[in-house]
Amino acid sequence: MDSQTKTENCLGWAATDPTGVLSPYKFSRRPLGSDDVSIKITHCGVCYADVIWSRNMFGDSIYPLVPGHEIAGIVKEVGSNVQRIKVGDPVGVGTYVNSCRNCEYCNDGVEVQCVKGPVLTFNHIDIDGTVTKGGYSSHIVVHERYCFKIPNNYPLASAAPLLCAGITVYTPMMRYNMNQPGKSLGVIGLGGLGHMAVKFGKAFGLSVTVLSTSISKKEEALSLLGADNFVVTSDQEQMKGLSKSLDFIIDTASGDHPFDPYLSLLKSAGVYALVGFPSEIKFSPASLNPGMKTFAGSVTGGTKMIQEMIGFCAARKIYPQIEVIPIQYANEALERLVKKDVKYRFVIDIENTLK
Amino acid sequence: MDSQTKTENCLGWAATDPTGVLSPYKFSRRPLGSDDVSIKITHCGVCYADVIWSRNMFGDSIYPLVPGHEIAGIVKEVGSNVQRIKVGDPVGVGTYVNSCRNCEYCNDGVEVQCVKGPVLTFNHIDIDGTVTKGGYSSHIVVHERYCFKIPNNYPLASAAPLLCAGITVYTPMMRYNMNQPGKSLGVIGLGGLGHMAVKFGKAFGLSVTVLSTSISKKEEALSLLGADNFVVTSDQEQMKGLSKSLDFIIDTASGDHPFDPYLSLLKSAGVYALVGFPSEIKFSPASLNPGMKTFAGSVTGGTKMIQEMIGFCAARKIYPQIEVIPIQYANEALERLVKKDVKYRFVIDIENTLK
Repeated sequence: MDSQTKTENCLGWAATDPTGVLSPYKFSRRPLGSDDVSIKITHCGVCYADVIWSRNMFGDSIYPLVPGHEIAGIVKEVGSNVQRIKVGDPVGVGTYVNSCRNCEYCNDGVEVQCVKGPVLTFNHIDIDGTVTKGGYSSHIVVHERYCFKIPNNYPLASAAPLLCAGITVYTPMMRYNMNQPGKSLGVIGLGGLGHMAVKFGKAFGLSVTVLSTSISKKEEALSLLGADNFVVTSDQEQMKGLSKSLDFIIDTASGDHPFDPYLSLLKSAGVYALVGFPSEIKFSPASLNPGMKTFAGSVTGGTKMIQEMIGFCAARKIYPQIEVIPIQYANEALERLVKKDVKYRFVIDIENTLK
Repeated sequence: MDSQTKTENCLGWAATDPTGVLSPYKFSRRPLGSDDVSIKITHCGVCYADVIWSRNMFGDSIYPLVPGHEIAGIVKEVGSNVQRIKVGDPVGVGTYVNSCRNCEYCNDGVEVQCVKGPVLTFNHIDIDGTVTKGGYSSHIVVHERYCFKIPNNYPLASAAPLLCAGITVYTPMMRYNMNQPGKSLGVIGLGGLGHMAVKFGKAFGLSVTVLSTSISKKEEALSLLGADNFVVTSDQEQMKGLSKSLDFIIDTASGDHPFDPYLSLLKSAGVYALVGFPSEIKFSPASLNPGMKTFAGSVTGGTKMIQEMIGFCAARKIYPQIEVIPIQYANEALERLVKKDVKYRFVIDIENTLK
């Protein structure tokens, strides 16, 4: 092996400047540590985070930048201390790949809240000082703790979106006890996250109402995703009919929108979980206090809950709606994601198209 | 008895126009119903709500208006069906005096969330069509359900503020499990509500930090109320030192203020309970989502929790800090309340001064 192949042992697609255009890029993954697993990536979901950082929308992008944090693949090698995971296992990696493993949150399996901050899967400085690179690439080396077993009967392409979209809605749903059959859930936004919220809601036995700005998604929401009800939020009559009727709302919309009209749909003691990221949150105390409602923020989840969710999806045959694409389509996919033209998650077929 | 004394059987102090100036006023209380108790009022706390409605600040005041919803007194008469309460019992009445008694919330003892809305103790239309009149008066007739027994060893003057100020902070504290010894609580605002939050916090075994805009309350907060820590919120250094250190915050400030600086003081998964009523709530998702924090609204509490709180205060010898005043001082008291010049609750000595 010459020095170049030693160094540049991984092929990915990277953005090299704020245009965010992705192109092939060779780089180096770290050698396998004793607690690490090395994964041949077969699939990677396309998340809006990939757009944000490819295009330097938060001003903190480090180029070349390899996006992707919904990773599925097959374990190729394991370090000497690794016991939970074996070579040949189908596994997933989500939005973070390291944490201090020593704080109250890490000890509790909620590494996403690590006091030193979790190390994100791409565009982040890892503990060894290197910049993390994501799943738009041929393989990845991760500490086994941040690696999740995927049951053999669960397709890897479908598993990928669970690692960000899935866990991001599953976490607040479990945390706020939304898994009570017979209760009612409103879902705002019907993209990658929202459509998973509908599926989880139905699996939990909830009555699910999709709240959408456009009638165009009605048919699919009801017939394909199994929602019970579809309300166009500009229809005052329909919104009034829903007043004080919902136990829970999951808001997956990232765009700016008013909150008061949605809060008015909650029953007393209802819970509004925000997983989208608008530019600001603004509402009247009259929308919150008299009905003693709860407005909760959330992001992804800890390793314990990720593994639990994957098991739940496999047991209950819950699969994201995906459109599998070749890596060569990645730039167009990001463009379509910006235009919300996706049903409901792009998943890159890394295994067969990244050469 | 002539017809006038039959009709005007109650002496109160009322506001007669939006100046909010109170003066003596005779009116009629309903005759005792079979489920009612008639209470000779001995004390009534002075709440900011009394200012709001006396002065028509919400535009819905009905004059003449008799304020007061922190009522304590002695039972003088009970209806034929009343069993829980006896003549001679010391009792309290809070912010509402009726509800449908038939919805899921009423059935659960959370009458404040009654689907038809609770009937408030003053300036509200009761089920019989009359306008309710509050505790700045010689007696009141209420359905026994909205009447709370006060232990014999608990002073009636001290009991009065529990019925609004006390229960308003006790409710979210119990609902969000703030009664866990060793956890930490921040209290914003040190008035009638805030000082009770400090007392409950200490009784629950919490480490309590008072967050205040002014240093002037420091000495009392620490020595008299027993807070562990006092932080002037304009002191950037102190605020930075508190970053991500609190499990809970109770915000009792009614004035407008920013929320992001306070949210930054919460640990991951921390709970911010708002019981004040600013003109709007506005903060960044960055203050809420990454730390999966909860922003909760609350108002007073249900009958079950009110009775529980009174028992807790008696058992743990928790007493509001009060300044007992004659009814003739009511107008000045309301003025001082507006200027926040009160430590920490005015209580009107109805028994000895309303003649």
